[in-house]
Amino acid sequence: MLVRLLYASRPTETSPCDLVQSILQASRSHNPAHGITGVLCHTEQVFIQVLEGGREAVNALYGQILKDTRHKDVMLLDYEEIQERRYPSWTMGQANMARINPSTVLKYSPLPVLDPYTMSGKMLLSLIDELMATASIVGRT
Amino acid sequence: MLVRLLYASRPTETSPCDLVQSILQASRSHNPAHGITGVLCHTEQVFIQVLEGGREAVNALYGQILKDTRHKDVMLLDYEEIQERRYPSWTMGQANMARINPSTVLKYSPLPVLDPYTMSGKMLLSLIDELMATASIVGRT
Amino acid sequence: MLVRLLYASRPTETSPCDLVQSILQASRSHNPAHGITGVLCHTEQVFIQVLEGGREAVNALYGQILKDTRHKDVMLLDYEEIQERRYPSWTMGQANMARINPSTVLKYSPLPVLDPYTMSGKMLLSLIDELMATASIVGRT
Amino acid sequence: MLVRLLYASRPTETSPCDLVQSILQASRSHNPAHGITGVLCHTEQVFIQVLEGGREAVNALYGQILKDTRHKDVMLLDYEEIQERRYPSWTMGQANMARINPSTVLKYSPLPVLDPYTMSGKMLLSLIDELMATASIVGRT
Amino acid sequence: MLVRLLYASRPTETSPCDLVQSILQASRSHNPAHGITGVLCHTEQVFIQVLEGGREAVNALYGQILKDTRHKDVMLLDYEEIQERRYPSWTMGQANMARINPSTVLKYSPLPVLDPYTMSGKMLLSLIDELMATASIVGRT
Amino acid sequence: MLVRLLYASRPTETSPCDLVQSILQASRSHNPAHGITGVLCHTEQVFIQVLEGGREAVNALYGQILKDTRHKDVMLLDYEEIQERRYPSWTMGQANMARINPSTVLKYSPLPVLDPYTMSGKMLLSLIDELMATASIVGRT
Amino acid sequence: MLVRLLYASRPTETSPCDLVQSILQASRSHNPAHGITGVLCHTEQVFIQVLEGGREAVNALYGQILKDTRHKDVMLLDYEEIQERRYPSWTMGQANMARINPSTVLKYSPLPVLDPYTMSGKMLLSLIDELMATASIVGRT
Amino acid sequence: MLVRLLYASRPTETSPCDLVQSILQASRSHNPAHGITGVLCHTEQVFIQVLEGGREAVNALYGQILKDTRHKDVMLLDYEEIQERRYPSWTMGQANMARINPSTVLKYSPLPVLDPYTMSGKMLLSLIDELMATASIVGRT
Amino acid sequence: MLVRLLYASRPTETSPCDLVQSILQASRSHNPAHGITGVLCHTEQVFIQVLEGGREAVNALYGQILKDTRHKDVMLLDYEEIQERRYPSWTMGQANMARINPSTVLKYSPLPVLDPYTMSGKMLLSLIDELMATASIVGRT
Amino acid sequence: MLVRLLYASRPTETSPCDLVQSILQASRSHNPAHGITGVLCHTEQVFIQVLEGGREAVNALYGQILKDTRHKDVMLLDYEEIQERRYPSWTMGQANMARINPSTVLKYSPLPVLDPYTMSGKMLLSLIDELMATASIVGRT
Repeated sequence: MLVRLLYASRPTETSPCDLVQSILQASRSHNPAHGITGVLCHTEQVFIQVLEGGREAVNALYGQILKDTRHKDVMLLDYEEIQERRYPSWTMGQANMARINPSTVLKYSPLPVLDPYTMSGKMLLSLIDELMATASIVGRT
Repeated sequence: MLVRLLYASRPTETSPCDLVQSILQASRSHNPAHGITGVLCHTEQVFIQVLEGGREAVNALYGQILKDTRHKDVMLLDYEEIQERRYPSWTMGQANMARINPSTVLKYSPLPVLDPYTMSGKMLLSLIDELMATASIVGRT
Repeated sequence: MLVRLLYASRPTETSPCDLVQSILQASRSHNPAHGITGVLCHTEQVFIQVLEGGREAVNALYGQILKDTRHKDVMLLDYEEIQERRYPSWTMGQANMARINPSTVLKYSPLPVLDPYTMSGKMLLSLIDELMATASIVGRT
Repeated sequence: MLVRLLYASRPTETSPCDLVQSILQASRSHNPAHGITGVLCHTEQVFIQVLEGGREAVNALYGQILKDTRHKDVMLLDYEEIQERRYPSWTMGQANMARINPSTVLKYSPLPVLDPYTMSGKMLLSLIDELMATASIVGRT
Repeated sequence: MLVRLLYASRPTETSPCDLVQSILQASRSHNPAHGITGVLCHTEQVFIQVLEGGREAVNALYGQILKDTRHKDVMLLDYEEIQERRYPSWTMGQANMARINPSTVLKYSPLPVLDPYTMSGKMLLSLIDELMATASIVGRT
Repeated sequence: MLVRLLYASRPTETSPCDLVQSILQASRSHNPAHGITGVLCHTEQVFIQVLEGGREAVNALYGQILKDTRHKDVMLLDYEEIQERRYPSWTMGQANMARINPSTVLKYSPLPVLDPYTMSGKMLLSLIDELMATASIVGRT
Repeated sequence: MLVRLLYASRPTETSPCDLVQSILQASRSHNPAHGITGVLCHTEQVFIQVLEGGREAVNALYGQILKDTRHKDVMLLDYEEIQERRYPSWTMGQANMARINPSTVLKYSPLPVLDPYTMSGKMLLSLIDELMATASIVGRT
Repeated sequence: MLVRLLYASRPTETSPCDLVQSILQASRSHNPAHGITGVLCHTEQVFIQVLEGGREAVNALYGQILKDTRHKDVMLLDYEEIQERRYPSWTMGQANMARINPSTVLKYSPLPVLDPYTMSGKMLLSLIDELMATASIVGRT
Repeated sequence: MLVRLLYASRPTETSPCDLVQSILQASRSHNPAHGITGVLCHTEQVFIQVLEGGREAVNALYGQILKDTRHKDVMLLDYEEIQERRYPSWTMGQANMARINPSTVLKYSPLPVLDPYTMSGKMLLSLIDELMATASIVGRT
Repeated sequence: MLVRLLYASRPTETSPCDLVQSILQASRSHNPAHGITGVLCHTEQVFIQVLEGGREAVNALYGQILKDTRHKDVMLLDYEEIQERRYPSWTMGQANMARINPSTVLKYSPLPVLDPYTMSGKMLLSLIDELMATASIVGRT
């Protein structure tokens, strides 16, 4: 069974940039063997990550994320069984939201600063789709 | 929560052109910080304005508009919670309806002169979409 | 309120061609001020005309047409409140059906000769759309 | 081809009540032979009437109504080809709107007094359906 | 044109109960003549009110509400052009939410206490429908 | 924002019956204040629980469940933003699946023994709906 | 493959009543073995008959009907492949339209006299359904 | 009323090729005046023909076809009232199925040889559409 | 994964009645442990059986059926992944088609004798549903 | 009647590559005469094959496959009556999944290695469609 999970979190570390690198590096070594693909969008204050894969693998990874002390305020935003992945080619794509045109965020958000805690999961998935469509997601920084 | 609000009003001042400039200038200084985007369409006799943004911000602005003595006959025409904005790139776009091809207005209106008080909100939104599609909305006059 | 009305009639005059000119001339002087647009399709034997505009204006014009002794057998074929006009750019477009490819009429009609009295209103509107799509409607003869 | 036509008018006579009786009497003698059925709703100031029947018969009757000097301000409100009649059992049913619960009118109208000139045809048809459902239509006064 | 408008507000007076009585009394004397119907739901802390009627009448009343100093934090929650009213029989029905089964509120709300400022307009309308269906709305207290 | 979350787990304790009592007791003291409602279905080997409430409250509770050592193999099965709760009246309803007609489980499951780890989330929600419809859910054991 | 065929015809004999009896008698002896079911509606002037059954059987019977000199003006009105029969219990039901309430015919027809040559096949099938629903179809006269 | 009729038959003559020529020639002289258009697909063993036109004209022609001894096993496959013709430009187009890519037939048929007697009418119409789309239908051989 | 499979076969034994008993007895001892439910409809000449259960279990049983020399002409008629079973309460229900009202078979079949080899799978499933609805399926003969 | 059948199996031979060649060769000699088309996707461990054709022909072939000792674990995954084939041009196309981009498999599968026994039939058909769209299916190796 294939699922897609979207969550938000806030970095607890003083250097979110290092945390991003660390997450991406871990994703690239861990995900291929477990069949997990996805995208990580980040600002200095907040992360949103979408994970796709088998139900067991995604649940196991989300369980680890909830225990990982480098994040806090982990909040599940969307989860569903899917017929096909949207991001099969990304071990873990990423988008640095600080470099994105503010009107892209504004299209789905009350303010031009990404705040997933005030947004619906479906609108965040639409935002990630928009990032895909505008080639704002990259494999490496 | 993201909303879109459409209203009409009539300028009370003798120089509607100055009022348009004043509204646009105020929009450009006020809207970005409050996450408001939208479009203002105006003739000498009547304005229609669509506002998009967070529910609180749009309500606060509409409350001010109702109290602003430079307009009268303020009438709410459409309001809904939205999944995405239509005008995320416009701090406040504008269209001078006097310069528009009359058949554009006629497409949605009984007469070639814009009179929002006799039209449904949905048809006015369609008219604004048509103005967008025909590049009749500009950032500055 | 915007409406579209379609009717058929038969010319009573011996020279339908002059009548067409007379109708078109009257349309061009009367319609712009009343916000009426539309299309007139004619053969030697029969007319079909579609009128778009405000409900009062279209009713007033249809009332005159019913009293106009140059037509007879006036028959209402379709009437509906509309969200937008199909022919906002035509004061009164016209198509001389004698110059049309017979297969265009045949597409919607039992015989290659236009006989609106045996056809449904929706099929006649489809025929007019086809005439539009094939650039068979002109502004002047 | 079966059609349904709805129009409004205003009585020109000083005694609308007599006019109603006259219309109903004429309907009862004329309609059965022509296959026309329908409903007449009336106040002192305004009539709405729905006519169902063959396209030719309904058009012929509507042509007479437009010429009948006992009405004025005749306005077509709705017209469509139908698959089945709604009122096959009424030669001409009638409802005296003065005797109707005001909330029935209010359900479809801005004010509790019937004014078809400000209402859409579809909402007037819904009002007549409501009158049917509440047994407010009778065969004779 | 018929519209439905839903808003929330907070009473500024120390005795919200008196304010409710005052609003209901004013509604009963003002609304019938203006064709306005609706429902008021209230707790000690918050009001939600739905107004139905002609577009001009509802806008005029909402303009007065925004200026009425006995309320604050007036927030528009839903507004749409409607084909028929839901509450044609209520000059101004009312529901004291303090007397309602908490699970009725909970069905549409994160917490058993009504807080319209955190809820979508559509869910609040569903809550009012549920109050209607469970006969929780009354004509007088 | 209102959400519904469904998960499965396996009790780690030797006495699942005591664990059920403990969960239900904790639910009854914790849930009302946090606006959480739901249903717990249990066998000796496996639990499925559906939680409804505000997004923050449900996430906080699910975070605790993942850390609770009395369960293992916690697996998220369904999660969505909802317009209304299905179980607003249950602080925490429960169904002892050992007392259920086997054909109820069989309707949605390959085998007559409940095994959520092999079933889709939607089918498990349908099973819980069937339990509701057949009055198999009770407030206390 | 199961089909339903509807046709109209006019009796050529002076005694249509005898013809009806003859058709019904033939149907009762021929149809059961060929798996044909259906309904015959008749006036003095016109017949409509609906035949259901296997594609070969219905075609064979319709071929015979076309050659049968006791009918004329045989006209196919509707034919489609079906998933299930509407009249599986009728070897050949019949309705004498002369005994039917005129408003039943009028519901689908311009005039209260059945004239299938001016009606669409779908409206005739709706009329037969109405006859079924009002128990106007009988097994024997 | 416009209809489309599809039937299959088998040539009884030893020279089906001459029969095809004879049918096409007859079509070209008879059809224009009667407003009939269509397509004939033929192999040595079997014909399928689709006829479009007025209901009376198509019925009259189909009646003749049933009596024409040069065909046998005439079987009606599809018949419906249509809003527009698919083949208004073909007096009688034709496709020699012996010259068609076998995979075109195979797309809709169990075997690569056209056998309409085992196929549904809708699948045969899809096959003719495919022949149109691949320009396999010609005006003359 | 839950599936439903429908097949037909012909008994090879001289005593189909004994075979039915033998199948039912085997079903009752084998199916409960494997989570298989279903219905068997039989005549002297032909069987149709619908099997529901886990994908592996149903495939294993169908593999055995194909090898069972007491049937021949085994033909798969329908197979799909399902969200819920239709027959969860039947270890193996049965219907002796010889005792069924012929019009029940005729509703879905060209002839009153069940011949699944000429019928679509969906129509056979509809027939079984009709048997359920008319209480024609029993647990034991 | 046209059907599509999808199954999976595991090769029992030590050289699956030879088995693939043998299957393809047999397909090319057997399928054209029986009107069977389809696609075979294979890895070293597992085959999935989709067969399209007449219901009898596909059932006969699937019966042989179930008895063929060179495969084991044959499992039916999807079967339906179809209106048209997807693969009419392939006697038996093939795709060596070892040469496919892993993200193609991953799009529909929990892991980048094809394992049809854990996947739904619909997702496997989507995977084959994706292989078609990316020209990964070839006629010969």
